[in-house]
Amino acid sequence: MGRYKFIVFEGIDGSGKSVQSKKLSECIDGYYTYEPTESEIGKLIRRVLRGEIKYSGETLALLFAADRREHVTHIERELKDKHVVSDRYLYSSIVYQSLQGAELDFILDINRFAIKPDVLVYLDVDVEEALRRMGKNRGEIFENREMLRLIRERYWDIIENRVFEPRYGYVVIDTSKRSVEEVHREIVKALRERGVID
Amino acid sequence: MGRYKFIVFEGIDGSGKSVQSKKLSECIDGYYTYEPTESEIGKLIRRVLRGEIKYSGETLALLFAADRREHVTHIERELKDKHVVSDRYLYSSIVYQSLQGAELDFILDINRFAIKPDVLVYLDVDVEEALRRMGKNRGEIFENREMLRLIRERYWDIIENRVFEPRYGYVVIDTSKRSVEEVHREIVKALRERGVID
Repeated sequence: MGRYKFIVFEGIDGSGKSVQSKKLSECIDGYYTYEPTESEIGKLIRRVLRGEIKYSGETLALLFAADRREHVTHIERELKDKHVVSDRYLYSSIVYQSLQGAELDFILDINRFAIKPDVLVYLDVDVEEALRRMGKNRGEIFENREMLRLIRERYWDIIENRVFEPRYGYVVIDTSKRSVEEVHREIVKALRERGVID
Repeated sequence: MGRYKFIVFEGIDGSGKSVQSKKLSECIDGYYTYEPTESEIGKLIRRVLRGEIKYSGETLALLFAADRREHVTHIERELKDKHVVSDRYLYSSIVYQSLQGAELDFILDINRFAIKPDVLVYLDVDVEEALRRMGKNRGEIFENREMLRLIRERYWDIIENRVFEPRYGYVVIDTSKRSVEEVHREIVKALRERGVID
């Protein structure tokens, strides 16, 4: 099947992204990772996301790009030995920071070092269902109904406009009315059909 | 004399930049500022400059750009009421991060939001004299003879190639064999002759 693959998961909070990306990574014995990372830059980003520090969308986009610059180096190293599965990547910057006023061209330019994933798994979910799943754990600045609705729209824009399109394309899976196991099986099936994994 | 001016000081460590930029700012009742700033991003950058954290030149360039993005907003606000004098600006990123391997185009692109200063005051100094002035206070990763020599060359490249050229150009002053007062008088004289200040 050739070289190892770089698989990215995206979706709104409550889409099941984190659970599914971990589960897939275990299943294919891959390297699991996520953004923002645990670096000092990632820690600073989390303080911004919790609303403790206020920065413009462009500033936050630059911080995410800085965090990603180091992340990409780690990903490239891991890809020599195994598949890499990342919970969030450049698409999150495109979606979230553009909603905060940064231009798409600016976001893409400052991330020009970012390697393309082989496939993007987009987990779609109804906003009401996402809110139910999140329950009371909603501490971040993007976690309210109206924002989730806008974020979901932007993800669809990316897919429709083929922004930063991966070699094996976008795998879209509706997680709204399915169990974790069902969604996992569907992801594995879709990736096998496309030849991403064995 | 029209609107207020944005005056930037650059030079290698030991060039007298900090003393002279403060002195000029007091003299013209301006707003004194510097980079990296005192923001959380600026604090993180200082940890990198002290060698406590290691990042690539591109990552550091992105961090400086993030810090500058917020800085530019403050500068624009201050410029409504007074002159602004900044100790270091985009030119420092061009010089230092290119020496760490970041491409000039990348540095300029990620800083596309940066407003142009009205004038750049470049304080030149002999590397040996700079080292003498710095004495034992040399804790940062760029503060050794060979690096200072390379940094000084890059500053001259910027001036010769008119990179990010300010409206009133580059004011170059050799501080090697002059007292603080002499250099200050020369700066004021040069800025008056060019019509930057009254």
